[in-house]
Amino acid sequence: MPVPVEFWFDFASTYSYVAAMRVEAAAAAAGVPLLYRPFLLGPIFAKQGWNDSPYNLNPARGRYMWRDIERLCTTHGLPFRRPSRFPRNPVLAARVARAASEESWLPAYIRAVFVANFGEDRDIADEALIGGILDTLGRDGRGTISAALDAEQRGRLREQTDSAWKIGIVGAPTFVVNGELFWGQDRMDEAFAWGRS
Amino acid sequence: MPVPVEFWFDFASTYSYVAAMRVEAAAAAAGVPLLYRPFLLGPIFAKQGWNDSPYNLNPARGRYMWRDIERLCTTHGLPFRRPSRFPRNPVLAARVARAASEESWLPAYIRAVFVANFGEDRDIADEALIGGILDTLGRDGRGTISAALDAEQRGRLREQTDSAWKIGIVGAPTFVVNGELFWGQDRMDEAFAWGRS
Repeated sequence: MPVPVEFWFDFASTYSYVAAMRVEAAAAAAGVPLLYRPFLLGPIFAKQGWNDSPYNLNPARGRYMWRDIERLCTTHGLPFRRPSRFPRNPVLAARVARAASEESWLPAYIRAVFVANFGEDRDIADEALIGGILDTLGRDGRGTISAALDAEQRGRLREQTDSAWKIGIVGAPTFVVNGELFWGQDRMDEAFAWGRS
Repeated sequence: MPVPVEFWFDFASTYSYVAAMRVEAAAAAAGVPLLYRPFLLGPIFAKQGWNDSPYNLNPARGRYMWRDIERLCTTHGLPFRRPSRFPRNPVLAARVARAASEESWLPAYIRAVFVANFGEDRDIADEALIGGILDTLGRDGRGTISAALDAEQRGRLREQTDSAWKIGIVGAPTFVVNGELFWGQDRMDEAFAWGRS
Protein backbone atom coordinates (compact mmCIF):
# COMPACT_ATOMS: atom_id res chain seq x y z
CA MET A 1 0.00 0.00 0.00
CA PRO A 2 1.76 3.22 -1.07
CA VAL A 3 2.32 5.79 1.66
CA PRO A 4 1.39 9.40 0.79
CA VAL A 5 4.23 11.78 0.00
CA GLU A 6 3.90 15.23 1.57
CA PHE A 7 5.36 18.04 -0.51
CA TRP A 8 6.41 20.90 1.78
CA PHE A 9 7.13 24.07 -0.15
CA ASP A 10 7.32 27.87 -0.03
CA PHE A 11 6.15 30.03 -2.93
CA ALA A 12 9.25 32.22 -2.65
CA SER A 13 11.66 29.29 -2.94
CA THR A 14 13.38 28.73 -6.27
CA TYR A 15 13.95 25.02 -5.83
CA SER A 16 10.33 24.64 -4.68
CA TYR A 17 9.34 26.05 -8.08
CA VAL A 18 11.27 23.39 -9.98
CA ALA A 19 9.79 20.65 -7.77
CA ALA A 20 6.22 22.00 -7.79
CA MET A 21 6.05 21.98 -11.56
CA ARG A 22 7.04 18.29 -11.68
CA VAL A 23 5.65 16.75 -8.50
CA GLU A 24 2.12 16.00 -9.69
CA ALA A 25 3.39 14.02 -12.68
CA ALA A 26 5.97 12.24 -10.54
CA ALA A 27 3.34 11.21 -7.99
CA ALA A 28 1.07 9.92 -10.74
CA ALA A 29 3.92 7.96 -12.34
CA ALA A 30 4.85 6.43 -8.99
CA GLY A 31 1.24 5.70 -8.10
CA VAL A 32 1.75 7.45 -4.76
CA PRO A 33 -0.79 9.88 -3.20
CA LEU A 34 0.46 13.44 -2.94
CA LEU A 35 -0.34 15.96 -0.20
CA TYR A 36 0.56 19.64 -0.56
CA ARG A 37 2.00 21.32 2.52
CA PRO A 38 2.55 25.05 1.98
CA PHE A 39 4.56 26.68 4.76
CA LEU A 40 6.70 29.77 5.30
CA LEU A 41 10.48 29.54 5.13
CA GLY A 42 10.89 32.93 6.85
CA PRO A 43 10.27 31.66 10.39
CA ILE A 44 12.30 28.51 9.64
CA PHE A 45 15.24 30.65 8.50
CA ALA A 46 14.82 32.88 11.59
CA LYS A 47 15.21 29.79 13.81
CA GLN A 48 18.52 29.17 12.04
CA GLY A 49 19.68 32.74 12.67
CA TRP A 50 18.97 34.24 9.24
CA ASN A 51 16.89 37.33 8.57
CA ASP A 52 16.91 36.83 4.79
CA SER A 53 17.30 34.07 2.23
CA PRO A 54 20.67 32.33 2.59
CA TYR A 55 21.10 32.99 -1.12
CA ASN A 56 21.08 36.72 -0.41
CA LEU A 57 23.13 36.49 2.79
CA ASN A 58 25.76 34.38 1.06
CA PRO A 59 26.51 35.79 -2.41
CA ALA A 60 28.62 32.82 -3.54
CA ARG A 61 25.76 30.46 -2.77
CA GLY A 62 23.37 32.85 -4.49
CA ARG A 63 25.44 32.92 -7.66
CA TYR A 64 25.52 29.14 -7.77
CA MET A 65 21.78 28.83 -7.12
CA TRP A 66 20.69 31.24 -9.87
CA ARG A 67 22.82 29.51 -12.47
CA ASP A 68 21.60 26.13 -11.26
CA ILE A 69 17.93 27.16 -11.38
CA GLU A 70 18.31 28.56 -14.89
CA ARG A 71 19.89 25.28 -15.99
CA LEU A 72 17.23 23.14 -14.25
CA CYS A 73 14.45 25.16 -15.90
CA THR A 74 16.06 24.58 -19.29
CA THR A 75 16.42 20.86 -18.58
CA HIS A 76 12.79 20.50 -17.50
CA GLY A 77 11.31 22.92 -20.03
CA LEU A 78 10.09 25.39 -17.39
CA PRO A 79 9.71 29.12 -18.04
CA PHE A 80 12.28 31.17 -16.15
CA ARG A 81 12.84 34.85 -15.65
CA ARG A 82 14.99 35.85 -12.71
CA PRO A 83 12.71 37.77 -10.31
CA SER A 84 13.60 41.44 -10.01
CA ARG A 85 12.97 41.02 -6.29
CA PHE A 86 13.94 37.95 -4.29
CA PRO A 87 12.46 36.56 -2.23
CA ARG A 88 8.94 37.74 -2.95
CA ASN A 89 6.57 37.83 0.02
CA PRO A 90 4.79 34.45 -0.16
CA VAL A 91 2.32 34.90 2.73
CA LEU A 92 -0.85 35.72 0.80
CA ALA A 93 -0.27 32.97 -1.77
CA ALA A 94 0.46 30.47 1.01
CA ARG A 95 -2.65 31.39 3.01
CA VAL A 96 -4.82 30.78 -0.04
CA ALA A 97 -3.09 27.45 -0.68
CA ARG A 98 -3.45 26.36 2.95
CA ALA A 99 -7.14 27.24 2.95
CA ALA A 100 -7.62 25.29 -0.29
CA SER A 101 -6.00 22.08 0.92
CA GLU A 102 -9.09 20.01 0.05
CA GLU A 103 -9.79 21.67 -3.30
CA SER A 104 -9.27 19.97 -6.63
CA TRP A 105 -7.94 23.19 -8.19
CA LEU A 106 -5.09 23.45 -5.65
CA PRO A 107 -2.32 21.91 -7.83
CA ALA A 108 -3.18 24.17 -10.78
CA TYR A 109 -3.24 27.20 -8.45
CA ILE A 110 0.16 26.30 -7.01
CA ARG A 111 1.75 25.96 -10.42
CA ALA A 112 0.21 29.24 -11.64
CA VAL A 113 1.57 31.16 -8.62
CA PHE A 114 5.04 29.67 -9.08
CA VAL A 115 5.08 30.51 -12.81
CA ALA A 116 4.03 34.09 -12.01
CA ASN A 117 6.93 34.41 -9.55
CA PHE A 118 9.74 32.64 -11.41
CA GLY A 119 8.57 32.49 -15.02
CA GLU A 120 7.10 35.98 -15.36
CA ASP A 121 8.69 38.10 -12.59
CA ARG A 122 5.32 39.14 -11.19
CA ASP A 123 4.63 40.07 -7.57
CA ILE A 124 2.82 37.18 -5.89
CA ALA A 125 2.15 39.38 -2.83
CA ASP A 126 -0.33 41.34 -4.97
CA GLU A 127 -3.98 40.50 -4.24
CA ALA A 128 -4.95 41.42 -7.80
CA LEU A 129 -2.49 38.88 -9.18
CA ILE A 130 -3.63 36.07 -6.87
CA GLY A 131 -7.27 37.00 -7.47
CA GLY A 132 -6.70 36.88 -11.23
CA ILE A 133 -5.15 33.41 -10.98
CA LEU A 134 -8.15 32.20 -8.96
CA ASP A 135 -10.59 33.75 -11.42
CA THR A 136 -8.84 31.97 -14.28
CA LEU A 137 -9.31 28.71 -12.40
CA GLY A 138 -13.05 29.38 -12.24
CA ARG A 139 -13.07 30.50 -8.61
CA ASP A 140 -14.34 33.73 -7.14
CA GLY A 141 -10.94 35.37 -6.63
CA ARG A 142 -12.01 38.12 -4.26
CA GLY A 143 -14.18 35.83 -2.13
CA THR A 144 -11.56 33.07 -1.99
CA ILE A 145 -8.87 35.51 -0.83
CA SER A 146 -11.16 37.05 1.73
CA ALA A 147 -11.99 33.63 3.18
CA ALA A 148 -8.30 32.69 3.26
CA LEU A 149 -7.45 35.81 5.25
CA ASP A 150 -9.74 35.16 8.19
CA ALA A 151 -8.12 34.56 11.54
CA GLU A 152 -8.71 30.82 11.59
CA GLN A 153 -7.04 30.28 8.21
CA ARG A 154 -4.11 32.49 9.15
CA GLY A 155 -3.68 30.33 12.23
CA ARG A 156 -3.61 27.17 10.15
CA LEU A 157 -0.70 28.38 8.05
CA ARG A 158 1.15 29.39 11.19
CA GLU A 159 0.53 25.95 12.68
CA GLN A 160 1.73 24.27 9.51
CA THR A 161 4.95 26.31 9.63
CA ASP A 162 5.41 25.36 13.29
CA SER A 163 4.90 21.71 12.34
CA ALA A 164 7.54 22.00 9.62
CA TRP A 165 10.15 23.03 12.18
CA LYS A 166 9.03 20.40 14.68
CA ILE A 167 9.44 17.55 12.22
CA GLY A 168 12.91 18.78 11.29
CA ILE A 169 12.40 20.73 8.09
CA VAL A 170 15.22 23.25 7.52
CA GLY A 171 14.62 24.24 3.90
CA ALA A 172 12.34 23.81 0.92
CA PRO A 173 11.23 21.84 -0.86
CA THR A 174 11.15 18.92 1.54
CA PHE A 175 9.36 15.66 0.85
CA VAL A 176 8.05 13.82 3.91
CA VAL A 177 7.16 10.15 3.72
CA ASN A 178 6.23 8.22 6.83
CA GLY A 179 8.30 10.56 8.98
CA GLU A 180 11.33 10.42 6.65
CA LEU A 181 12.53 13.75 5.25
CA PHE A 182 14.05 14.24 1.82
CA TRP A 183 15.28 17.80 1.36
CA GLY A 184 15.82 19.24 -2.12
CA GLN A 185 14.16 19.05 -5.52
CA ASP A 186 16.83 16.55 -6.49
CA ARG A 187 15.50 14.05 -3.92
CA MET A 188 11.98 13.82 -5.32
CA ASP A 189 12.48 10.44 -6.96
CA GLU A 190 13.91 8.95 -3.77
CA ALA A 191 10.93 10.23 -1.80
CA PHE A 192 8.48 8.57 -4.17
CA ALA A 193 10.49 5.36 -4.16
CA TRP A 194 10.31 5.43 -0.35
CA GLY A 195 6.52 5.89 -0.53
CA ARG A 196 6.21 2.82 -2.75
CA SER A 197 8.38 0.54 -0.64
CA MET B 1 33.81 14.12 -27.54
CA PRO B 2 33.00 13.75 -23.82
CA VAL B 3 34.27 16.53 -21.59
CA PRO B 4 36.05 15.45 -18.38
CA VAL B 5 34.13 15.72 -15.14
CA GLU B 6 36.10 17.11 -12.20
CA PHE B 7 35.10 15.69 -8.84
CA TRP B 8 35.88 18.23 -6.11
CA PHE B 9 35.73 16.70 -2.64
CA ASP B 10 36.90 16.93 0.96
CA PHE B 11 37.75 13.82 2.99
CA ALA B 12 35.84 15.16 6.02
CA SER B 13 32.62 15.70 4.06
CA THR B 14 29.85 13.14 4.50
CA TYR B 15 28.21 13.71 1.14
CA SER B 16 31.64 13.56 -0.51
CA TYR B 17 31.92 10.04 0.92
CA VAL B 18 28.70 8.88 -0.73
CA ALA B 19 29.77 10.41 -4.04
CA ALA B 20 33.39 9.20 -3.90
CA MET B 21 32.32 5.59 -3.50
CA ARG B 22 30.15 5.76 -6.64
CA VAL B 23 31.86 8.27 -8.92
CA GLU B 24 34.34 5.93 -10.62
CA ALA B 25 31.60 3.53 -11.69
CA ALA B 26 29.37 6.41 -12.80
CA ALA B 27 32.16 7.88 -14.93
CA ALA B 28 32.84 4.51 -16.53
CA ALA B 29 29.14 3.96 -17.24
CA ALA B 30 28.86 7.42 -18.80
CA GLY B 31 32.08 7.00 -20.77
CA VAL B 32 33.30 10.33 -19.38
CA PRO B 33 36.88 10.95 -18.12
CA LEU B 34 37.08 11.67 -14.40
CA LEU B 35 39.52 13.99 -12.64
CA TYR B 36 39.89 14.02 -8.85
CA ARG B 37 40.16 17.42 -7.21
CA PRO B 38 40.78 17.15 -3.46
CA PHE B 39 40.46 20.45 -1.63
CA LEU B 40 39.80 21.75 1.88
CA LEU B 41 36.32 22.88 2.88
CA GLY B 42 37.66 24.67 5.98
CA PRO B 43 38.90 27.77 4.13
CA ILE B 44 35.79 27.72 1.92
CA PHE B 45 33.57 27.69 5.00
CA ALA B 46 35.67 30.47 6.57
CA LYS B 47 34.99 32.65 3.52
CA GLN B 48 31.29 32.13 4.21
CA GLY B 49 31.70 33.15 7.85
CA TRP B 50 31.74 29.71 9.46
CA ASN B 51 34.42 28.39 11.80
CA ASP B 52 33.03 24.84 11.84
CA SER B 53 30.92 22.54 9.69
CA PRO B 54 27.46 24.03 9.07
CA TYR B 55 26.12 20.68 10.31
CA ASN B 56 27.64 21.40 13.71
CA LEU B 57 26.78 25.09 13.75
CA ASN B 58 23.17 24.35 12.82
CA PRO B 59 21.89 21.36 14.84
CA ALA B 60 18.65 20.98 12.85
CA ARG B 61 20.61 20.70 9.63
CA GLY B 62 22.99 18.30 11.34
CA ARG B 63 20.17 16.00 12.44
CA TYR B 64 18.78 15.89 8.93
CA MET B 65 22.18 15.24 7.39
CA TRP B 66 23.10 12.31 9.64
CA ARG B 67 19.80 10.55 9.01
CA ASP B 68 20.11 11.24 5.31
CA ILE B 69 23.65 9.88 5.13
CA GLU B 70 22.69 6.73 7.01
CA ARG B 71 19.82 6.20 4.57
CA LEU B 72 21.99 6.90 1.50
CA CYS B 73 24.61 4.43 2.72
CA THR B 74 21.92 1.78 3.12
CA THR B 75 20.55 2.54 -0.36
CA HIS B 76 23.96 2.30 -1.99
CA GLY B 77 25.31 -0.55 0.14
CA LEU B 78 28.07 1.53 1.73
CA PRO B 79 29.47 0.83 5.20
CA PHE B 80 28.49 3.50 7.69
CA ARG B 81 29.43 4.22 11.29
CA ARG B 82 28.81 7.73 12.52
CA PRO B 83 32.23 9.22 13.30
CA SER B 84 32.80 9.86 17.00
CA ARG B 85 34.39 13.12 15.93
CA PHE B 86 33.14 15.29 13.09
CA PRO B 87 34.61 16.72 11.04
CA ARG B 88 37.91 14.85 11.13
CA ASN B 89 40.98 16.82 10.09
CA PRO B 90 41.35 16.02 6.36
CA VAL B 91 44.59 17.89 5.64
CA LEU B 92 47.05 14.99 5.65
CA ALA B 93 44.79 12.74 3.57
CA ALA B 94 44.17 15.58 1.10
CA ARG B 95 47.87 16.40 0.73
CA VAL B 96 48.61 12.79 -0.15
CA ALA B 97 45.73 12.74 -2.65
CA ARG B 98 46.84 16.01 -4.25
CA ALA B 99 50.41 14.76 -4.58
CA ALA B 100 49.13 11.53 -6.17
CA SER B 101 46.99 13.19 -8.82
CA GLU B 102 48.74 11.30 -11.63
CA GLU B 103 48.86 7.92 -9.87
CA SER B 104 46.75 4.95 -10.88
CA TRP B 105 46.20 3.98 -7.24
CA LEU B 106 44.57 7.34 -6.41
CA PRO B 107 40.91 6.23 -6.71
CA ALA B 108 41.48 3.19 -4.47
CA TYR B 109 43.32 5.38 -1.94
CA ILE B 110 40.48 7.90 -1.89
CA ARG B 111 37.85 5.23 -1.28
CA ALA B 112 39.94 3.60 1.46
CA VAL B 113 40.35 6.91 3.32
CA PHE B 114 36.63 7.66 3.09
CA VAL B 115 35.71 4.19 4.37
CA ALA B 116 38.12 4.61 7.29
CA ASN B 117 36.43 7.92 8.21
CA PHE B 118 32.76 7.11 7.67
CA GLY B 119 32.57 3.33 7.63
CA GLU B 120 34.98 2.55 10.48
CA ASP B 121 35.18 5.71 12.60
CA ARG B 122 38.96 5.88 12.34
CA ASP B 123 41.04 9.06 12.53
CA ILE B 124 42.18 9.99 9.04
CA ALA B 125 44.51 12.65 10.50
CA ASP B 126 46.68 9.82 11.83
CA GLU B 127 49.86 9.24 9.79
CA ALA B 128 49.88 5.57 10.80
CA LEU B 129 46.41 5.09 9.36
CA ILE B 130 47.20 6.83 6.07
CA GLY B 131 50.54 5.03 5.86
CA GLY B 132 48.79 1.70 6.40
CA ILE B 133 46.33 2.43 3.59
CA LEU B 134 49.21 3.29 1.27
CA ASP B 135 51.13 0.14 2.26
CA THR B 136 48.04 -1.97 1.51
CA LEU B 137 47.94 -0.39 -1.95
CA GLY B 138 51.52 -1.50 -2.53
CA ARG B 139 53.09 1.92 -1.95
CA ASP B 140 55.79 2.90 0.50
CA GLY B 141 53.49 4.55 3.06
CA ARG B 142 56.12 6.44 5.00
CA GLY B 143 57.93 7.68 1.89
CA THR B 144 54.74 8.68 0.11
CA ILE B 145 53.57 10.70 3.11
CA SER B 146 56.93 12.35 3.51
CA ALA B 147 56.96 13.39 -0.16
CA ALA B 148 53.40 14.71 0.13
CA LEU B 149 54.34 16.92 3.06
CA ASP B 150 57.09 18.88 1.37
CA ALA B 151 56.51 22.58 0.88
CA GLU B 152 55.76 22.37 -2.83
CA GLN B 153 53.05 19.76 -2.38
CA ARG B 154 51.49 21.69 0.50
CA GLY B 155 51.35 24.71 -1.78
CA ARG B 156 49.56 22.73 -4.45
CA LEU B 157 46.72 21.76 -2.13
CA ARG B 158 46.43 25.37 -0.99
CA GLU B 159 46.28 26.52 -4.62
CA GLN B 160 43.63 23.93 -5.41
CA THR B 161 41.52 25.17 -2.49
CA ASP B 162 41.96 28.76 -3.69
CA SER B 163 40.85 27.64 -7.17
CA ALA B 164 37.75 26.00 -5.71
CA TRP B 165 36.61 29.31 -4.24
CA LYS B 166 37.52 31.24 -7.38
CA ILE B 167 35.40 29.04 -9.61
CA GLY B 168 32.45 29.38 -7.23
CA ILE B 169 32.54 26.21 -5.15
CA VAL B 170 30.73 26.68 -1.82
CA GLY B 171 30.43 23.08 -0.61
CA ALA B 172 31.37 19.48 -1.37
CA PRO B 173 31.10 17.42 -3.35
CA THR B 174 30.94 19.62 -6.42
CA PHE B 175 31.19 18.31 -9.96
CA VAL B 176 32.68 20.71 -12.49
CA VAL B 177 32.17 20.18 -16.21
CA ASN B 178 33.32 22.76 -18.71
CA GLY B 179 32.96 25.52 -16.12
CA GLU B 180 29.49 24.38 -14.99
CA LEU B 181 29.12 23.50 -11.30
CA PHE B 182 26.87 20.79 -9.91
CA TRP B 183 26.86 20.85 -6.12
CA GLY B 184 25.77 17.78 -4.17
CA GLN B 185 26.08 14.01 -4.44
CA ASP B 186 22.55 13.98 -5.82
CA ARG B 187 23.69 15.92 -8.91
CA MET B 188 26.27 13.38 -10.07
CA ASP B 189 24.15 11.98 -12.89
CA GLU B 190 23.38 15.45 -14.23
CA ALA B 191 27.08 16.29 -14.22
CA PHE B 192 27.93 13.21 -16.26
CA ALA B 193 25.05 13.88 -18.64
CA TRP B 194 26.45 17.40 -19.11
CA GLY B 195 29.88 15.93 -19.87
CA ARG B 196 28.41 13.70 -22.56
CA SER B 197 26.37 16.39 -24.28
